[in-house]
Amino acid sequence: MRAVDIIMKKRSGGELSGEEIHFLISGYVAGTIPDYQVSAWAMAVFFRGMTKGETAALTKVMLNSGDVMDLSGIKGPFVDKHSTGGVGDKTSLILAPIAASLGIRDPMMSGRALGHTGGTLDKLEAIPGYRTNLSREEFREILDRDGFAMTGQTREIVPADRLLYALRDVSGTVESIPLITASILSKKLAEGTDALVLDVKYGSGAFMKDAKDGEELARSLVDTGAAMGMKITALLTDMDEPLGNMVGNFLEVEESIDCLEGKGPRDLMELTLELAARMAVLGGKAQNPSEGRRLCEEALKSGKPRQLFLDNIRSQGGDPDSFLRMRGVYRSDTRGEVRAREGGFISRIDAWQVGHAGVQLGVGRNRTEDAVSPTAGVCFHKKGGDAVKAGDLVMSVWAKDREGLEAALPQLERSLSYSAVPPESRRMVLKSIEPAGTV
Amino acid sequence: MRAVDIIMKKRSGGELSGEEIHFLISGYVAGTIPDYQVSAWAMAVFFRGMTKGETAALTKVMLNSGDVMDLSGIKGPFVDKHSTGGVGDKTSLILAPIAASLGIRDPMMSGRALGHTGGTLDKLEAIPGYRTNLSREEFREILDRDGFAMTGQTREIVPADRLLYALRDVSGTVESIPLITASILSKKLAEGTDALVLDVKYGSGAFMKDAKDGEELARSLVDTGAAMGMKITALLTDMDEPLGNMVGNFLEVEESIDCLEGKGPRDLMELTLELAARMAVLGGKAQNPSEGRRLCEEALKSGKPRQLFLDNIRSQGGDPDSFLRMRGVYRSDTRGEVRAREGGFISRIDAWQVGHAGVQLGVGRNRTEDAVSPTAGVCFHKKGGDAVKAGDLVMSVWAKDREGLEAALPQLERSLSYSAVPPESRRMVLKSIEPAGTV
Repeated sequence: MRAVDIIMKKRSGGELSGEEIHFLISGYVAGTIPDYQVSAWAMAVFFRGMTKGETAALTKVMLNSGDVMDLSGIKGPFVDKHSTGGVGDKTSLILAPIAASLGIRDPMMSGRALGHTGGTLDKLEAIPGYRTNLSREEFREILDRDGFAMTGQTREIVPADRLLYALRDVSGTVESIPLITASILSKKLAEGTDALVLDVKYGSGAFMKDAKDGEELARSLVDTGAAMGMKITALLTDMDEPLGNMVGNFLEVEESIDCLEGKGPRDLMELTLELAARMAVLGGKAQNPSEGRRLCEEALKSGKPRQLFLDNIRSQGGDPDSFLRMRGVYRSDTRGEVRAREGGFISRIDAWQVGHAGVQLGVGRNRTEDAVSPTAGVCFHKKGGDAVKAGDLVMSVWAKDREGLEAALPQLERSLSYSAVPPESRRMVLKSIEPAGTV
Repeated sequence: MRAVDIIMKKRSGGELSGEEIHFLISGYVAGTIPDYQVSAWAMAVFFRGMTKGETAALTKVMLNSGDVMDLSGIKGPFVDKHSTGGVGDKTSLILAPIAASLGIRDPMMSGRALGHTGGTLDKLEAIPGYRTNLSREEFREILDRDGFAMTGQTREIVPADRLLYALRDVSGTVESIPLITASILSKKLAEGTDALVLDVKYGSGAFMKDAKDGEELARSLVDTGAAMGMKITALLTDMDEPLGNMVGNFLEVEESIDCLEGKGPRDLMELTLELAARMAVLGGKAQNPSEGRRLCEEALKSGKPRQLFLDNIRSQGGDPDSFLRMRGVYRSDTRGEVRAREGGFISRIDAWQVGHAGVQLGVGRNRTEDAVSPTAGVCFHKKGGDAVKAGDLVMSVWAKDREGLEAALPQLERSLSYSAVPPESRRMVLKSIEPAGTV
């Protein structure tokens, strides 16, 4: 078998066998197949796509390139959620304790902020003392006790993805649906989860700018996941405006506990409950999403998820009491604001612009090696659809430094559109995508 | 400027600027842009193609990556010929002295056999003592005196092509018309020639298997060459059967002098005269191809090209007298033959099969580092269209060793097709392709 023949087969639109995919990817990880062949192959995949069988084979080879978390001895069901990334998306922090309160266990391995999108690990680490580098034993122990545990991926988890993603990033081959599919699913399978709810976002702040591409990705993910034996479902959701009223690391943890106390903003609560409802169904706790949603709403009212969230802070090294005292006050001293330029209605807040302004503020980063600030961010006092008078306060802004603030404020201004009449209201969930062959 | 943005621009079908192409290719040669980005870009070019302007820009950057032969002080016109490669193609050896006899100078830099295709340098080196590694001064001196000189490319000539070709070879991106165009033209421009006749072959023994692809390549070559200021014309020619009656290194030199003595086989003479006629036109020696052809036929009758060929052997280190004594006898001792399996007509001899059998015999090579044999090869006693009786001798075969002979004979057998009725006769030249905007 020769790598060049595999490349040329894919280039001419052929379907690669599992052996061919294994040869190429495991050879790449082992260092016997050079990066210049893999990048050319990835570009051929970009143009030619992959069948469901090829995508599943790639996922499997990637999964097997490293360790799989051993959850034996812990009582399931295990259900996780994965989002394709957005601005202000803190649903993981709210979902995990809701699901745990229903008896579901969520073994959550998350990532960091990059570009305009935020990262769950960066948000959690804004809680002083909170550790996201759990050992396997700690992860198992906390998952078993609290019902969920939040950690980063170790170097042993799917090394093929780390290598391949770094290569795709510099070779212009990130935007390939089968490659994205294998990257996401191999990491989720490596967590040891049985079931997965996917939040596939579309819109300005998402990776996929339009709903059609988002749906194609969701379709590929659920079909490949099902072929790999997962229970899996996807929601196609709106990421054109930042989610909720807070964008920032500590700010988003704060908004998460607001939600757990029943005081969350409408768009964020709606999305969280819809996702949590699917977790309840996949975990066997509800027959259908509406029953799942009712269970989740009841759980929220019981206060149990809030307590599980605080317990988790303690389990992972933080202090819940001091965390609660920091609410509303743990903010950077470098402060600015954005006021309405005109009266009427806010017709839209562009999530992409807010995300990039967030990098300037210190919420996110452009390079993986850069640090982020826990106390930077934006609080929206008005969102799309709200009426404003010229001069009304629309955003409170906190920055890591003066320079960042000055760079971010004009971009935050530009993120706002106005209209004389109320804009159409946004639908958070456009549709639900189930594996082919299920209803 | 970032390489990844250039890759993504090409990937999405954009037209790259001259600056972008320069940044990428000169960075690659300088070692600042890694091969894994260039191979991904080459695959994007395979799928998206290039405009004439992009192809010309790439040719120019590649040309400027190394030295250009300085022909100043030597009297032109300079006209060269380039073939896209085939089996039994020794036209360069015949053309160059014919053109020289008309007062044209042909600064010929050639390549070596690879895969099923032969190489001019390997053929010339079959003449004992003949050197193809001329210094620049030797090249200039012999070109000036004999009217043509035959050498290999030095490492200083178009280093970008050497690097890029090696990368394309292993990354499945050889078969891209703009990349082939830039590779061919940059090397020919680096020779210092003003004018170029292209022999673009199609058929089983050619790089392009069908005439449509061959024509597309010819069109790209003449238009890009014209855009670079060359006088250029292309013939689209048949390479479905081996050219002439001899395939082998010394064998083909022998057949070349047969042609110069007026005893060449019909197909080879026809192609050679059609190409030579175009060289005469581009060199300003004839108004049109038919006048050019008449001049070439007269030159052949004068015996002058034959004498120039022998002079060149002496100039490049061989001994013309001992060369003439070796005709008909300089053959490997390991000998075999192929006889007609059935009676009727030979309908076709598959050039690709003959070329690959030639690698087994020692005529060619599969890896650039392998040696070739001067005395191996095949002599065809019958060609497509000839009547045969079962048992007639069709091929005499000489091999470097017994193992090679045994591997080659069945493949040579398979190269033959038979028919009960005479096959349609082959047209050597399908059409002539001039730069757009000329008649």
